Amino acid sequence: MDELDIDAVAELDLDDPVFVEGLPGVGHVGKLAVDHLLEELEGESTLVRRVYSREFPPQVTVEDGVSELTCAEIYAVSPPEGRDLLLLTGDHQAQTNDGHYVLTSAFLDIAEEFGASEAFALGGIPTGELIDEYAVVGAMTEESMREDLEEAGVEFREDEPAGGIVGVSGLLLGLGARRGFESACLMGETSGYLVDPKSARAVLEVLEEVLEIELDYETLDERAEEMEDVIGKIQEMEQQQQMDVPTDDDLRYIG
Amino acid sequence: MDELDIDAVAELDLDDPVFVEGLPGVGHVGKLAVDHLLEELEGESTLVRRVYSREFPPQVTVEDGVSELTCAEIYAVSPPEGRDLLLLTGDHQAQTNDGHYVLTSAFLDIAEEFGASEAFALGGIPTGELIDEYAVVGAMTEESMREDLEEAGVEFREDEPAGGIVGVSGLLLGLGARRGFESACLMGETSGYLVDPKSARAVLEVLEEVLEIELDYETLDERAEEMEDVIGKIQEMEQQQQMDVPTDDDLRYIG
Amino acid sequence: MDELDIDAVAELDLDDPVFVEGLPGVGHVGKLAVDHLLEELEGESTLVRRVYSREFPPQVTVEDGVSELTCAEIYAVSPPEGRDLLLLTGDHQAQTNDGHYVLTSAFLDIAEEFGASEAFALGGIPTGELIDEYAVVGAMTEESMREDLEEAGVEFREDEPAGGIVGVSGLLLGLGARRGFESACLMGETSGYLVDPKSARAVLEVLEEVLEIELDYETLDERAEEMEDVIGKIQEMEQQQQMDVPTDDDLRYIG
Amino acid sequence: MDELDIDAVAELDLDDPVFVEGLPGVGHVGKLAVDHLLEELEGESTLVRRVYSREFPPQVTVEDGVSELTCAEIYAVSPPEGRDLLLLTGDHQAQTNDGHYVLTSAFLDIAEEFGASEAFALGGIPTGELIDEYAVVGAMTEESMREDLEEAGVEFREDEPAGGIVGVSGLLLGLGARRGFESACLMGETSGYLVDPKSARAVLEVLEEVLEIELDYETLDERAEEMEDVIGKIQEMEQQQQMDVPTDDDLRYIG
Repeated sequence: MDELDIDAVAELDLDDPVFVEGLPGVGHVGKLAVDHLLEELEGESTLVRRVYSREFPPQVTVEDGVSELTCAEIYAVSPPEGRDLLLLTGDHQAQTNDGHYVLTSAFLDIAEEFGASEAFALGGIPTGELIDEYAVVGAMTEESMREDLEEAGVEFREDEPAGGIVGVSGLLLGLGARRGFESACLMGETSGYLVDPKSARAVLEVLEEVLEIELDYETLDERAEEMEDVIGKIQEMEQQQQMDVPTDDDLRYIG
Repeated sequence: MDELDIDAVAELDLDDPVFVEGLPGVGHVGKLAVDHLLEELEGESTLVRRVYSREFPPQVTVEDGVSELTCAEIYAVSPPEGRDLLLLTGDHQAQTNDGHYVLTSAFLDIAEEFGASEAFALGGIPTGELIDEYAVVGAMTEESMREDLEEAGVEFREDEPAGGIVGVSGLLLGLGARRGFESACLMGETSGYLVDPKSARAVLEVLEEVLEIELDYETLDERAEEMEDVIGKIQEMEQQQQMDVPTDDDLRYIG
Repeated sequence: MDELDIDAVAELDLDDPVFVEGLPGVGHVGKLAVDHLLEELEGESTLVRRVYSREFPPQVTVEDGVSELTCAEIYAVSPPEGRDLLLLTGDHQAQTNDGHYVLTSAFLDIAEEFGASEAFALGGIPTGELIDEYAVVGAMTEESMREDLEEAGVEFREDEPAGGIVGVSGLLLGLGARRGFESACLMGETSGYLVDPKSARAVLEVLEEVLEIELDYETLDERAEEMEDVIGKIQEMEQQQQMDVPTDDDLRYIG
Repeated sequence: MDELDIDAVAELDLDDPVFVEGLPGVGHVGKLAVDHLLEELEGESTLVRRVYSREFPPQVTVEDGVSELTCAEIYAVSPPEGRDLLLLTGDHQAQTNDGHYVLTSAFLDIAEEFGASEAFALGGIPTGELIDEYAVVGAMTEESMREDLEEAGVEFREDEPAGGIVGVSGLLLGLGARRGFESACLMGETSGYLVDPKSARAVLEVLEEVLEIELDYETLDERAEEMEDVIGKIQEMEQQQQMDVPTDDDLRYIG
């Protein structure tokens, strides 16, 4: 296999689509968000590209005995109302620094092929503590995008994210800008310890405003409740053991 | 040396052969199984290809003073009865993620060259505890293979192997499927702590059914008994030291 | 993106310029020094090249919400008096051994393009203890440079730096020499625990002599004072906790 | 710089030379041995090739203030009596698995260019304990070499070296054999904790026999005595601290 091996599963004419990325990352926020979009827009979405690459781990997933080679998938969504979308999902990021450049370039090539010139990278920003109010922190390629994003509820902060944005989300902005893409990264606050459907919902509510689409959150809220149960049980166990309130340090990443 | 350097040691016409992979992995199950096949079918097998690669460790093995460069070997087997076979054995897997893709692609090229369109990847699946009854867990590229494999004793489980299949075994399925290969991975249950000839036997018994071949297990059973002796001695030592039954945690990987 | 992607931001004729490198390293000495040069010579400097590369981390920085893809920048400086300069600054070094060779070669290509045949690599040399008198240790590509550098205050020591010079500073000398560059590395002594503006000043004072330029140090001295305050507070905290003088071991890297 | 950059420093006609490798490794035995050869044969040796490579660390060495880019050097030796030699020395091995293949191939290209078809890789084999009698363990590419080597004092052992031979020494045999080189690896026993001039002498004494050359060992013996002093001082310190004999575990690698 070459470094990249892209299956053109279907061709489709889209009208000025917006590219939306949701690969795994902090709190799985981006992946939860895009997978929820795909679930909600299932009737209007078509798998158009599969991206295989030597930059992904050398791995198949196995579901009920049937294997699938690791890949990223891009779906085209053409809803009756609102903007056309290209949704990127997958189970893995690239495994090397170099690989992030290679894969993000490939994703942008595909986005361009379908006529996109705007992109959103969805992800999480770790706060280190459990969260009540989920803010969505933003980064953008051009100052001119600030007003619209702030109106949709995005916060821009002077010093965040402190270490910049790493991986495909970061490069989607960085490499995208060099090709003329207007891109933003929407990062839901999340503890960093847990898969966080509530943070994904916060990110999606921003996206609803920006893209003028409407989403139902029932299935995502169910997942959030399941996670609450998990957290509740952990806290109970901790309390039985220690007879005092658990600290954040007691929590590990739970997916 | 180029990334790949393949010696065509011999040419041979095979009739629709099945490609069987047995490189080192969990419990050395796959390697033990293919090496036993080679031992049993010695009279009917011919070394046809040696695959050298910069993806293997930079190493020679030394046996009785004579050095051999690390490589993988492919043997053609044309038994009087049953299917023709191509058997892949070797002492190493690739050393990088990328290398697994490179080497598996090379192995599939050779398999195609000899007319193969089916493949079995043999390996172990770790259970974390010593085993009495050795089940063989399967993964397959196509749902249509399920019935035949289940009849041969393979179990397909909803959630196993949990993390998918990594390395050459995984890619043999994943990359093979993309070329039209019907492939399955046969994983013998094994503790994960020990070289496990019994698990290899369980895998081979499935293969006997599927390929309609017959094998003698005397030498493999001898190796199993040697391993039993090793385990027995360890348990004895543990008991003398602790005067209670050793737990799995007391065992380390012993080869 | 290719391995290298260089933006020619501006073209400019320079007269036998000197190339000066200041990427991050021990005590951030080199970066502080070149960034101070850029600040002082702002009116006379022009950004001429941006170097993007897959060898840099896959990352954007975010300042007040706006993202910038990681890159190195080269500025041309043409002061009314003194030598023309090419100043290299950036936030990252290459992420692999190989990458240091690739990037340094690219930097030297650009230096040659602008007519440079001399280079200075600025950096720090760790002493492991807090410093009162900041010596500047040197390394040079040609013995003939010794006298001038010693006159400017550089010390050449028999056994330092003990492990040689690693990264872009080292290769600027090593690869530069192979292209006929006369290069020197100026290493300010620094504890190695702290961002060290005083060490950067010591290095710049040597450079002033060599290049016959004049610099004002007000802003750098302010940064040095801020660092002194930080050190003072740490020492206070230590004393309150331990009621004895902190050792160097109590200090961690503080930036 | 390309992956390889080879300076042809001088050309020289050699008569069927033997290639001898001595890059750093266990106990620095190989490097000590080849460097001693170079010292003893100084009057008859000529530097013919410098090999620079991105596979070496990105580093310059600095001696008395003057920098040199990391490289490997090949010297041609044409003694009045005995075989012509090509001696390979340097301060570093390749930094990646892949790099060992690249560099060893380059070294063999140069050896072929000068007409060599035999090679010796010199190194150490770790025993884990201090040594009185220094045996030299061998590995060879062809069984036919055994008799001559055994006569010269080489021991071939059934199970050693247990893990094979890794790095440039291993590949010199492995890749060399594939080009028709008759090669042997001569490994002096050494504790593995110390730079070991005595082990280097043992290896050279074998080489004297095989190549029919004669060497003086004065300077190597001096280095051995210096090491003895170091060991003695360590043992003294240990005894003062513990008032009992130091074990091998008390020793660290000292160079």
